[in-house]
Amino acid sequence: MGDTEINPWGSESVKDYGKLSKEFGIENFGKFAGKLPEPLLYMKRNIIFGHRDFGKVAECIRRKKPFVMMTGLMPSGKFHIGHKMLADQIIYYQKHGAEIFLCVADIEAYNMRLAGLEQLRKIAIEEYLLNYIALGLTPKKCDFYFQSGRSADAKKSNAFYRLAGTVPKRVTMNEMKAIYGDLSPGKIMSVMVQVADILHPQMEEFGGPRPVLVPVGIDQDPHLRLTRDIAARMKGNGEFDFVLPSSTYHEFMKGLKGGKMSSSDPYSYIALTDDPKIVKDKIMKYAFSGGRETIKEHREKGGDPGIDVAYHMLEFMFEPDDRKLRKLHSDYKSGALLTGELKQILIERVQSFLEQHQKKREAAKKQVDKFLK
Amino acid sequence: MGDTEINPWGSESVKDYGKLSKEFGIENFGKFAGKLPEPLLYMKRNIIFGHRDFGKVAECIRRKKPFVMMTGLMPSGKFHIGHKMLADQIIYYQKHGAEIFLCVADIEAYNMRLAGLEQLRKIAIEEYLLNYIALGLTPKKCDFYFQSGRSADAKKSNAFYRLAGTVPKRVTMNEMKAIYGDLSPGKIMSVMVQVADILHPQMEEFGGPRPVLVPVGIDQDPHLRLTRDIAARMKGNGEFDFVLPSSTYHEFMKGLKGGKMSSSDPYSYIALTDDPKIVKDKIMKYAFSGGRETIKEHREKGGDPGIDVAYHMLEFMFEPDDRKLRKLHSDYKSGALLTGELKQILIERVQSFLEQHQKKREAAKKQVDKFLK
Repeated sequence: MGDTEINPWGSESVKDYGKLSKEFGIENFGKFAGKLPEPLLYMKRNIIFGHRDFGKVAECIRRKKPFVMMTGLMPSGKFHIGHKMLADQIIYYQKHGAEIFLCVADIEAYNMRLAGLEQLRKIAIEEYLLNYIALGLTPKKCDFYFQSGRSADAKKSNAFYRLAGTVPKRVTMNEMKAIYGDLSPGKIMSVMVQVADILHPQMEEFGGPRPVLVPVGIDQDPHLRLTRDIAARMKGNGEFDFVLPSSTYHEFMKGLKGGKMSSSDPYSYIALTDDPKIVKDKIMKYAFSGGRETIKEHREKGGDPGIDVAYHMLEFMFEPDDRKLRKLHSDYKSGALLTGELKQILIERVQSFLEQHQKKREAAKKQVDKFLK
Repeated sequence: MGDTEINPWGSESVKDYGKLSKEFGIENFGKFAGKLPEPLLYMKRNIIFGHRDFGKVAECIRRKKPFVMMTGLMPSGKFHIGHKMLADQIIYYQKHGAEIFLCVADIEAYNMRLAGLEQLRKIAIEEYLLNYIALGLTPKKCDFYFQSGRSADAKKSNAFYRLAGTVPKRVTMNEMKAIYGDLSPGKIMSVMVQVADILHPQMEEFGGPRPVLVPVGIDQDPHLRLTRDIAARMKGNGEFDFVLPSSTYHEFMKGLKGGKMSSSDPYSYIALTDDPKIVKDKIMKYAFSGGRETIKEHREKGGDPGIDVAYHMLEFMFEPDDRKLRKLHSDYKSGALLTGELKQILIERVQSFLEQHQKKREAAKKQVDKFLK
């Protein structure tokens, strides 16, 4: 697969989305953007660029029929604006009729030796759940759960783990090696549980067969393909008859330095709990610029918005107005807008967002129990 | 390991127990036989020949302190007199104070493609549980469960699967390959769940840390060693602090033809539901004989009780009187006792046992629900 290899445990940033789509049979998301109600920026701007079987989901939204949006979170490090991209999608689909299945991948995180289960639980609630709630997630039709303890209802828990336990019958080691490379018992267990995460909303105990959407970054596609294959193999034996899950694929938001936004480098991301004053510094000092060496040169030759991280973040999240965004693009390119000025626009937007968000986050603390039942 | 390789998925019959004990650190069981209350034939006759850490269990029996006997059953085929050896041990330890954890390894059986979960459940109840009850198992302090649905109590189920999900962190692929040879995702999942089967009785939700005895055939020792290693690695991180499980090792009862007693060959075993008339035929026609070609030769040279399956079955199960057994041995060896006569003794014992057992088995049907809660 060469430079378009996608591996959920890899760390390469992925650049050529067109090529990926072609190689892996992911279809263009574009045609849905105009038809969905109140589409997200990510949809309109082709940041959510690809999908598999999204048509079934679009149809459910249009006809107000039941569907599920399922996703997982890895409880590691700070919740940052890269994670917010997925949170916005969860909240969007909840608003438009989806039942939400929100999984804390604590068994996976544990086997990756990130932390003990208690610590992972704390991170999942304080970093992730609180921010989801502050961003607009509501407890209605939202099943927030931990892989390490599926439900307070034994029937549901047993059904979930029964499914996870029967997944391995449908997959070989060679298939797994081709997808995940080097395997450990922990990786194998994680994959089996993840497959159950995606498929179990369709078990009778959880509502029965219906379309399930899993919005992911492109690096998660191997999981989706494997899960679809396994679901297909399960059909017709009288045990499980699942609708093959649908998926969408979004580009990753770049980190401040232009590379990956990484939980292990606080200067690569903006956390939703970052002090707005620190954010100013992070952007001014670290945000990779597409501007020129000197103001004079910038005025003469113009900057490159295509590589400028401040522009990138405005495009992805902080400038919802297409007309204004286009103007920023042309002004930066012409040299009329300087790097410092562009960064200042981003800083104001981010600070304003964080101030409001952090108030909401405080208020969200009262709601946590409703999600944990 | 050469000819003493032991592999839970292998099919080699194991002959040199002394060598195995030496190679794998299994200690001689003999010293306990005389000290245990009402010891089983298997104990007195060195059929249960080895152990690891049985001292802790003997101490619990002596001082009437809490301990667990944990074992699993693979719901495949007919319940036969080979299986009865383990059943007798379960019932013995229950009678002498053990809490019984009796696991139906349906997730393992499913991943081995033996049958669907519903079919496996039916076999587990009708072939195994009914026979256990008829042999004397009582519902008191007996937790009979399926790997595919641990408990009707969600706290317990979640605890069990949480443990299974965290086991893989403590084991590497190389370790697993060294023990199990070729691996499949199904085997790996089965091992993780089996480790949880053995360790979970010590979780707080199931009664907390205490000695756990797992009586097994020698082929299961790799599981035990791995489980002890994993339990040792779990210590001291504030999550799990288990007493290392104890184990005993019994010889296998030979099949009628002298080889392995195999569920796939009905003429290799005597099932506890076999028609007593058919049993006569099975023993007369198929039981491997240590006698001579002709009666004349047998009278002159004597038979070989060491290879005679009828003698073997009397020794293992159907002649509890040591004095009488010794007489059978010497008479057969001297030629005074003919093969047909020896077989006839076994036939009468087996028929008498089966007739009584099958009545008890009918009566046992009323008790099944108490075990399934």
